[in-house]
Amino acid sequence: MPVNKMLVLDSRPSGKVEPKQFRLVEAPAPTPGAGQLLVRNLYLSLDPYMRGRMDDAKSYELPQPLGETMGGGTVGEVVESNNPAFKEGDRVVGMGGWQLYALSDGRGLRKIDATRIPIQAYLGPVGMPGVTAWYGLNTIIAPKKGETVVVSAATGAVGSVVGQLARIAGARTVGIAGGAEKCAYARAALGYDICVDHKAPDFAAALKAALPDGVDGLFENVGGAPFEYAMRRINAFGRVAVCGLIASYESAPTMLNMVTFLVKRIKMEGFIVSDQAAIWPEALMELAGHVANKRLNYRETITEGLENAPRAFIELLHGGNFGKALVKLA
Amino acid sequence: MPVNKMLVLDSRPSGKVEPKQFRLVEAPAPTPGAGQLLVRNLYLSLDPYMRGRMDDAKSYELPQPLGETMGGGTVGEVVESNNPAFKEGDRVVGMGGWQLYALSDGRGLRKIDATRIPIQAYLGPVGMPGVTAWYGLNTIIAPKKGETVVVSAATGAVGSVVGQLARIAGARTVGIAGGAEKCAYARAALGYDICVDHKAPDFAAALKAALPDGVDGLFENVGGAPFEYAMRRINAFGRVAVCGLIASYESAPTMLNMVTFLVKRIKMEGFIVSDQAAIWPEALMELAGHVANKRLNYRETITEGLENAPRAFIELLHGGNFGKALVKLA
Repeated sequence: MPVNKMLVLDSRPSGKVEPKQFRLVEAPAPTPGAGQLLVRNLYLSLDPYMRGRMDDAKSYELPQPLGETMGGGTVGEVVESNNPAFKEGDRVVGMGGWQLYALSDGRGLRKIDATRIPIQAYLGPVGMPGVTAWYGLNTIIAPKKGETVVVSAATGAVGSVVGQLARIAGARTVGIAGGAEKCAYARAALGYDICVDHKAPDFAAALKAALPDGVDGLFENVGGAPFEYAMRRINAFGRVAVCGLIASYESAPTMLNMVTFLVKRIKMEGFIVSDQAAIWPEALMELAGHVANKRLNYRETITEGLENAPRAFIELLHGGNFGKALVKLA
Repeated sequence: MPVNKMLVLDSRPSGKVEPKQFRLVEAPAPTPGAGQLLVRNLYLSLDPYMRGRMDDAKSYELPQPLGETMGGGTVGEVVESNNPAFKEGDRVVGMGGWQLYALSDGRGLRKIDATRIPIQAYLGPVGMPGVTAWYGLNTIIAPKKGETVVVSAATGAVGSVVGQLARIAGARTVGIAGGAEKCAYARAALGYDICVDHKAPDFAAALKAALPDGVDGLFENVGGAPFEYAMRRINAFGRVAVCGLIASYESAPTMLNMVTFLVKRIKMEGFIVSDQAAIWPEALMELAGHVANKRLNYRETITEGLENAPRAFIELLHGGNFGKALVKLA
């Protein structure tokens, strides 16, 4: 019987997450009962939303319970099945958590085809981050040809897809990313018309110069000062998709002056892609086509080994990843 | 030849508007040239948006030029016409300004039927304020039966229509108004299920108690602390129509913590009804029907005489009006 390793939430952070918040636990992998199956997780997805669940605060999801295995998206391989819908060897995506083996009754588990698309892409451009990008861009921003769309965390798992879908839709795309290397990649591989480095001392002037026609759509993943600067350039009837505010999760809140809504008649909408079950099939089909046909580039930061997930997660919260943050579990 | 009196903007306010910002000018009423007509203004509409135009700041409208007659909506009677579309005696609504007589080439002027509806209602529930209410409620909030809709400045020219249309649509309506008298009127005449007095010392607790099921739609006319309290009770997927922020026009800005967008997945939209030309005919027809059939109640604060318009306008900015603020010019 294989040994399962799990990372459980041991304590809640006060401010910044530290590695001590997680505790590694070992136990024999569970044996599937009637209707159940056992999945060997191959990759774990690390995502900013996990930070919110570590707090004991009211939000759109219940808090991560203390002493239980951290929740998280995974891709894996069925190793044993008493469920007629799955058989040994099936590749699946689901919420397998921060662990090597996951027991499932099949609910929320989806079989995937890993022959045309690398399996871990189902945690990135052909998974939750990709659908997030698709939904926010197409339903909230709905860019018209020639409009300017600004994307923060422009090279991240979500932002990289937003930028490319916006370009495919005919928009002028302006990325905001942290550091020259990410900005160079944003232009060369993701096709942004321009990318502005929010760590550069001349950021505000550079962003202004990058936006001679203002901002028609803003896809916000970060918050903080770069968001405030981008909002100063918003055009009348601008649309803002609020997807994440990672800069505010562990520090000062991002505040917005309400008068902008009146003066610019803007529309702003926050969303969580898990609310939007109806659009997943259409979005995934389109995204899978783009990835299979190499129209969508993406990049991954892969950390080896479950025991390194806490460190990789903390790096993600501070922009230390480059593209989709993944942990290779097997 | 009749004498025209005009109020011109003499200086820009720094902070609060004072009567000295306006100067009364007299001159012979103009004589209409070819294609022109002369209107004798009967009522002038006083509206919060005028405060914004007094500043020399970039906004959705050009600033009111210094030394020129203040702009503003009016209803009046054609007294002389060289324009084939209008004849002497026609009643019209348009932007006649803070003056007794307005010269027009007919553009932006609309003939009105004052037989079934009092003429000044075309500056209120069957005019710009009514269409503002109709647009924000129906296109941004779109209340479903049984949802809770909160309206600030609940007895104002806009808010009074919002509350009644929301009730007609089957929503539970909660008003916010300043003072016990306005709140009593809101319940008795406007049909709000409950009205909370933002001047009362227990306002926060009373608002919370009035919202056992939270807020699904918020029609915001005021901003400031009452807005912040209402936002704390907003439900997931809540919609906020940002119509005005009168509390912030002359004092501290109203700020919003962006995290609300994520946690509650809300939609917020600022709008100016003059952008929405397409919906005016439908909205006006519906509103006129409601007023003619006494389904929409409304109240007016009528000030006599052009020379008192500055004082009445300053009162409006501080909630001194009760219902639609009008100046009777003749």
